[in-house]
Amino acid sequence: MTDPQGAGVTVLGLGAMGSALATTLLDAGHAVTVWNRTSARAVDLSARGAQAASSIGAAVAANPLIVACLLDHASVHETLDPVIAGMRGSTLVNLTTTTPNEARELATWAAGHGVDHLDGAIMATPPMIGTPEASILYSGSRDVFDASRPVLDRWATSTYDGADAGLASLVDLAMLSGMYSMFAGFLHGAAMAGSVGISATEFAARATPFLSAMTDGFEHFAGVIDGGDYAVPGQQSLDFSDLSHIVRASEEQGVRPTTIAAVQELISEQIADGHGAEGFARIYESLRAERTAKTGQTHQDDNSDELEVAR
Amino acid sequence: MTDPQGAGVTVLGLGAMGSALATTLLDAGHAVTVWNRTSARAVDLSARGAQAASSIGAAVAANPLIVACLLDHASVHETLDPVIAGMRGSTLVNLTTTTPNEARELATWAAGHGVDHLDGAIMATPPMIGTPEASILYSGSRDVFDASRPVLDRWATSTYDGADAGLASLVDLAMLSGMYSMFAGFLHGAAMAGSVGISATEFAARATPFLSAMTDGFEHFAGVIDGGDYAVPGQQSLDFSDLSHIVRASEEQGVRPTTIAAVQELISEQIADGHGAEGFARIYESLRAERTAKTGQTHQDDNSDELEVAR
Repeated sequence: MTDPQGAGVTVLGLGAMGSALATTLLDAGHAVTVWNRTSARAVDLSARGAQAASSIGAAVAANPLIVACLLDHASVHETLDPVIAGMRGSTLVNLTTTTPNEARELATWAAGHGVDHLDGAIMATPPMIGTPEASILYSGSRDVFDASRPVLDRWATSTYDGADAGLASLVDLAMLSGMYSMFAGFLHGAAMAGSVGISATEFAARATPFLSAMTDGFEHFAGVIDGGDYAVPGQQSLDFSDLSHIVRASEEQGVRPTTIAAVQELISEQIADGHGAEGFARIYESLRAERTAKTGQTHQDDNSDELEVAR
Repeated sequence: MTDPQGAGVTVLGLGAMGSALATTLLDAGHAVTVWNRTSARAVDLSARGAQAASSIGAAVAANPLIVACLLDHASVHETLDPVIAGMRGSTLVNLTTTTPNEARELATWAAGHGVDHLDGAIMATPPMIGTPEASILYSGSRDVFDASRPVLDRWATSTYDGADAGLASLVDLAMLSGMYSMFAGFLHGAAMAGSVGISATEFAARATPFLSAMTDGFEHFAGVIDGGDYAVPGQQSLDFSDLSHIVRASEEQGVRPTTIAAVQELISEQIADGHGAEGFARIYESLRAERTAKTGQTHQDDNSDELEVAR
């Protein structure tokens, strides 16, 4: 199985995702050193040809490229703080889920220790790793991204989002935010349908093509937001679509309107502020209101050249 | 233009949707009588061949099939209460947006006056009426649905959801609930992306294929719900996906987490109740909790035979 072209890689963290990352590299012929806080998890991977490092120090010394896929940002520091001094000249690709600010903190910390850093955000479940459906977003050092492509591309479609280390996490979490809201919306609809005995499976059969088709609306909303005029013709007004029918029907059917009521709250706020004749995209202003109110910060349109997509 | 086969139809309510319904019937050769609370709106339709009724009494007397597309449930009663006694033997197709309980109330009221009733829920914008993309759900009298198909099918793909007059509204609002939650989730993600200067249009280009693909997850969630075991293997646990990263990142970027925090509230509730190792579909139980708590009502699996779909 060993491909002499395959660079050596150290993988820290052998949860379901870390194990999938290591296994994919092993299958592609890379020499892989693995480490996990509890060493039992390395046994399966040793059987597939991985080197199980005896300590975190040995793990980070084994290869110039170190991939971390740990529990959270705190665990990255707990794991690497004791050995970072010996990592000067190494490359750290951190695939641990973090917030954008945590990724930025790690980039600064790594740079302070002479370690090249790239942050990655995995948009896939462990079984998807190594298939074309998997996507991993990266941000931070462009040089590390380019030099590491032979490894990164084993796992997923690799996209470079820019030099700000927080970008990959930010784009990932922004898309996941949409996904979880959509999932919750589906479950709320399923609960309404369930209240009259329609099975969730039957509701899914109807909601899936409908909601999939409705994603076409994003482009329209985006055009309204970027155009800056929430009153452009051809939209349903907030006054007309104030969600009162949905909230009322939900309550009548004995279904808690928690998620849809949160959307209605934003609509009601905009109506109260005199924007009832404008379209649904207007609630974007409620969502970003805290930023404007707290910091006076506006859109930073000047770093859009960082948003390259690697193909 | 006049098709002798086209049945005469009265359309009450000439807002954007009512006008689209009347225009589509006129174009298809039906004799159409129109009425609006303020008569000015009938002028355009008269120019296209409609008969403008001089009074609501004249309007409902003009044809055996009366279609209402008014502002809301209250306006249906305000309009028809004074003339309902003279409508015995007529057919009322109500396309006004109502809740399921309002549709049920109208069905009972119509039956009490010897009027055949069918409720309809329009899943389309006015410009879509008369195209294959438009969908209208119906519930109530199956006989009215079958007899009216030559008219109903002019407007949209017609689906019959069952004898309970509330079903069309319920399925419509359940699907729209999913849609608005998804739209709000997109806007929240766009606001997060906007906080680092990514345009909404650029975010939409990435979020649209992703969220469209993620609608495949509905079938999985539905299987878990209908299977009744939220702990089946192969799911991410609520403990793992507790949305804390998204909420924190949103706050760090100065974006209000209103909508995603509502989803997190449901997750936190289930974790607190000891279900943290179970999958996301578990929040279905939080959503339907009010029904269970307030009424002790459970799923009514006995009327699934009403949920026929007309093809």
